[in-house]
Amino acid sequence: MTDTSPRFSHLAIIGVGLIGGSIAAAARQRGLVDRITGIGRTPTRLDKAISAGLIDHGTTDISELTDVDLLIACTPVDRIAHDVLSAAGAISNSAILTDAGSTKAGICDALSSLDGCDGPTFVGSHPLAGSEKQGFEHARADLFVDRTCVVTPTPTSPASVVGALGDFWQSLGAEVIQMSPVDHDRALARTSHLPHLVAAALAGTLPEADRPLAATGFRDTTRIAAGDPALWVPILRHNAVALAEALAAFEMHLGEFRDSLAAADTAALQKLLEEAKRTRDELG
Amino acid sequence: MTDTSPRFSHLAIIGVGLIGGSIAAAARQRGLVDRITGIGRTPTRLDKAISAGLIDHGTTDISELTDVDLLIACTPVDRIAHDVLSAAGAISNSAILTDAGSTKAGICDALSSLDGCDGPTFVGSHPLAGSEKQGFEHARADLFVDRTCVVTPTPTSPASVVGALGDFWQSLGAEVIQMSPVDHDRALARTSHLPHLVAAALAGTLPEADRPLAATGFRDTTRIAAGDPALWVPILRHNAVALAEALAAFEMHLGEFRDSLAAADTAALQKLLEEAKRTRDELG
Repeated sequence: MTDTSPRFSHLAIIGVGLIGGSIAAAARQRGLVDRITGIGRTPTRLDKAISAGLIDHGTTDISELTDVDLLIACTPVDRIAHDVLSAAGAISNSAILTDAGSTKAGICDALSSLDGCDGPTFVGSHPLAGSEKQGFEHARADLFVDRTCVVTPTPTSPASVVGALGDFWQSLGAEVIQMSPVDHDRALARTSHLPHLVAAALAGTLPEADRPLAATGFRDTTRIAAGDPALWVPILRHNAVALAEALAAFEMHLGEFRDSLAAADTAALQKLLEEAKRTRDELG
Repeated sequence: MTDTSPRFSHLAIIGVGLIGGSIAAAARQRGLVDRITGIGRTPTRLDKAISAGLIDHGTTDISELTDVDLLIACTPVDRIAHDVLSAAGAISNSAILTDAGSTKAGICDALSSLDGCDGPTFVGSHPLAGSEKQGFEHARADLFVDRTCVVTPTPTSPASVVGALGDFWQSLGAEVIQMSPVDHDRALARTSHLPHLVAAALAGTLPEADRPLAATGFRDTTRIAAGDPALWVPILRHNAVALAEALAAFEMHLGEFRDSLAAADTAALQKLLEEAKRTRDELG
């Protein structure tokens, strides 16, 4: 921890689940904030998050958030814009607003009026640290360590806010990269949303009688299909255009495998598997 | 360990890699064999396997195997039938021959003359305990514990041999199930060979610029694409017919996801993701 770590007096987190809870745990452990308010829909869940030491205060009323200087919406992607707009009305003009959603273009578009000219500023974030697990019970202060966090400024985002937000994620241990919201969504369609679709389609085609034969390979390949549909439907819907492009590219490439098998073309199949192995090995 | 554990005086393993080395380690640790001979192509590798304590003796000459009573071919699937036939000529009539290959119908067909009527008996095996790792350096005595091992008798397989072979795998910790070679291949096309193809096609479509954004979801879904193409090309080629069927079913199901996205049909997408999650959750 250097002396240049960003400090925020009051951090507010809308949606205290795996991601929101982990942000709270990490910010507290690293001494980045003085106090943390959690905003949720269920008072008993908020009380439990207080008992777990993640947040200092819980509320179901977003209009209570007057003196917040950093607010992070960790709700499902189809609720983020609404939640941020609800908070923005009550919050101080100097506050930084961000989110942790897996899609960015639609959210950043919907919040483009929050550009800091007249009120608090919104800049999108996406920490790539999801899991098929849910709930703050799985929160970990080290969830973001050595993970990528994408910050998605628009041409009107103030550089000071983009910098402070990047410093915040970096102080949680993340490696921060900047992309436009649209570029983020195109890349994530390929690296996250397409794999989710493919894993779900694989899991969905497994006949019950085959289950004893589904070993580690099948289990790894389909692990993310256990993710919560309530979170994933909005993500896939939000990013449907980029996802359709990624899916078409995948289907075309899968067709090359199919053709090499049908033609008994060993050399072509070998080359396809070697290319895939090289890419996978380089990911580490 | 009960007193009914099968015991073999002399175990021979053709191909001392991850699987062959793990069989050796497990059989020795559990006291199932008196001595173990490893057969390979590279004397220095065999010497290292002796130094590692996995085998007692190494040879490159299959015709040396005269007094073996259990032989397991752990070579790539396109070499198993040849290796077993080479050994069968020299070996005693009471010997049991098996393999650890990921495909069964072609191998069992090619070895159908080894039915125990006139010489040693072959019955196919497939312990579902692979890994993208290679080499006996990764061998583990507990590799088969709680894993499924499929034994694939044919109508002419002597029940005593099938029983002894099942007992052997069970004594290594595996859960043994019996299937016909053809049923095995159809099921494994869906649970292993199709996931391999899909993982490789996913890895193969990742642009280099996207790599920093490939998080745990992408890594899990493509992990098996790091498998050795020299092993996988023969497996996919051997099982091309069943694999083509499995691939067609997968592509059709993936098409349902695509259509639900294109039609913005939230209910259909939700249902598809829920079915996939239920199947994946039930796998544990």
